[in-house]
Amino acid sequence: MFEYNLTLIATATFAITGVLAASERDVDIFGVIVLGTVTAVGGGTLRDVLLQVEPFWLADKTFLWVALGASLATFLFARMLRRTERPLLYLDGFGAALFGVQGTIKALHMDLAFPVAAGMGVLSAIGGGLIRDLLAGRQTLIMRREFYATPILIGCLLFALVASRLPDSRPLAVVTITLIFAFRAAAIRWSWSMPGWAVVKGSRPG
Amino acid sequence: MFEYNLTLIATATFAITGVLAASERDVDIFGVIVLGTVTAVGGGTLRDVLLQVEPFWLADKTFLWVALGASLATFLFARMLRRTERPLLYLDGFGAALFGVQGTIKALHMDLAFPVAAGMGVLSAIGGGLIRDLLAGRQTLIMRREFYATPILIGCLLFALVASRLPDSRPLAVVTITLIFAFRAAAIRWSWSMPGWAVVKGSRPG
Amino acid sequence: MFEYNLTLIATATFAITGVLAASERDVDIFGVIVLGTVTAVGGGTLRDVLLQVEPFWLADKTFLWVALGASLATFLFARMLRRTERPLLYLDGFGAALFGVQGTIKALHMDLAFPVAAGMGVLSAIGGGLIRDLLAGRQTLIMRREFYATPILIGCLLFALVASRLPDSRPLAVVTITLIFAFRAAAIRWSWSMPGWAVVKGSRPG
Repeated sequence: MFEYNLTLIATATFAITGVLAASERDVDIFGVIVLGTVTAVGGGTLRDVLLQVEPFWLADKTFLWVALGASLATFLFARMLRRTERPLLYLDGFGAALFGVQGTIKALHMDLAFPVAAGMGVLSAIGGGLIRDLLAGRQTLIMRREFYATPILIGCLLFALVASRLPDSRPLAVVTITLIFAFRAAAIRWSWSMPGWAVVKGSRPG
Repeated sequence: MFEYNLTLIATATFAITGVLAASERDVDIFGVIVLGTVTAVGGGTLRDVLLQVEPFWLADKTFLWVALGASLATFLFARMLRRTERPLLYLDGFGAALFGVQGTIKALHMDLAFPVAAGMGVLSAIGGGLIRDLLAGRQTLIMRREFYATPILIGCLLFALVASRLPDSRPLAVVTITLIFAFRAAAIRWSWSMPGWAVVKGSRPG
Repeated sequence: MFEYNLTLIATATFAITGVLAASERDVDIFGVIVLGTVTAVGGGTLRDVLLQVEPFWLADKTFLWVALGASLATFLFARMLRRTERPLLYLDGFGAALFGVQGTIKALHMDLAFPVAAGMGVLSAIGGGLIRDLLAGRQTLIMRREFYATPILIGCLLFALVASRLPDSRPLAVVTITLIFAFRAAAIRWSWSMPGWAVVKGSRPG
């Protein structure tokens, strides 16, 4: 129940930050609904389509209502929410950590090999933002050097490796979410970006 | 039968307008086929993938041939068709209304909640255009203030709400399609765009 | 076995060229893994989702490891590999020919009509590159006049048309792959692009 409520919070957070991130330019109310909902449920949907299971928001529509409600609320309070962009950035990092570990757990339940399960977790965490950025014409996460997805990937890998050998993986899930979030929070606080040795230099200048 | 023929017309229209919309820049014949076909069947395909049913053009290949044929015809007569862009714009609005209501009906048949069914209808209507715009590097519908998707959303919602309580929903379907189309036609005729209160102002200038 | 090994080589090639093509701008190691893997397995994944079968890399994870390994190797040796870009271009053309014919064979095994099967082959060959270009913010193949997808389309169509009437389609597969590759190699060697009559001129200058 605790976990379920946390996921709902993560869904709402993704919808809010999704709308705000995309509204660097004007967006009308239809766009707001699409972008908020896609950011919130898009990653989990991609995962479910690849795993050939029913999209989670068809099985439990609560997630859809939360995403829709949060998108509409963002539309109404956009001006106010923008002033709180920094707290929302942390909340988004927490949501991504949560979705990552949850997606990994869902994939492990389907007996996938641990690195594949971790990949499904990362997809759950970043897929919605990727679709949003494509629809909004923004540069995607993939081409930014922000320290965003890498902690999720490492955290999900370690979690998936160990979780299947534990009788109860929930404590480990909490620890992993906390660690991923701590890294992301530090990256926001001190503006970390990927170190030079972890970057392939572009072949073209600019 | 009447409905089926209308859908074929809508498919052909989407293929034609899809190619023309994307051919602001040079497109070769392979691109024409891809863009026309994707515009015509992309939205319904996304809906079918999410609902875990066979893509409709695998179940009934007629739609695929019509989309292909219309794309190729557009390739041959592109110069001529461009002069008739305005009539095609209306035809496209009619196709979108039709696909929206049809998608909603298909989702209702699968016992989805009415707002989800309406969402599937909207996806059927605009999904193909979204994929086309991504592939062609155009700004998507989501970031334009055109009055395009909102009437479809409202129409599909109202239809989905009432249709499940009717013994025969076909008359209502015709009325809804007509109303959606009337709004879209008025929006084309008088260049309506979303009113200011329905828009979140961009956080960045430009 | 021979065919299987060839497919693994094609997968590795796609991962390598995928990363290099996308790394015109800086990409960090996470981006390298995503872009390489998506290029290598994205096309076949789209095909499998549309055909409602398990993504091939879930059924046989070897493809995933090869894609991941090749992506990481490209990260390590990017500077060296760039000097060999031309050989890699040929290898990429060979991989596309192979994936095209393989995708067609997979679709034919599911009793699809021959043009649909050919379409699935083309999707297998170019889908990964399309997703990569979207994620990396590059112009997609669809809007370039390069002679890339058209030989694959023609080859797959002819193969699909004849293959179902042969007791053993393997020799024909080898011939088709060779011919597609020969065309692509010639197009690279002599910088062929689509002839003017096969292009719809853009409606806007530039």
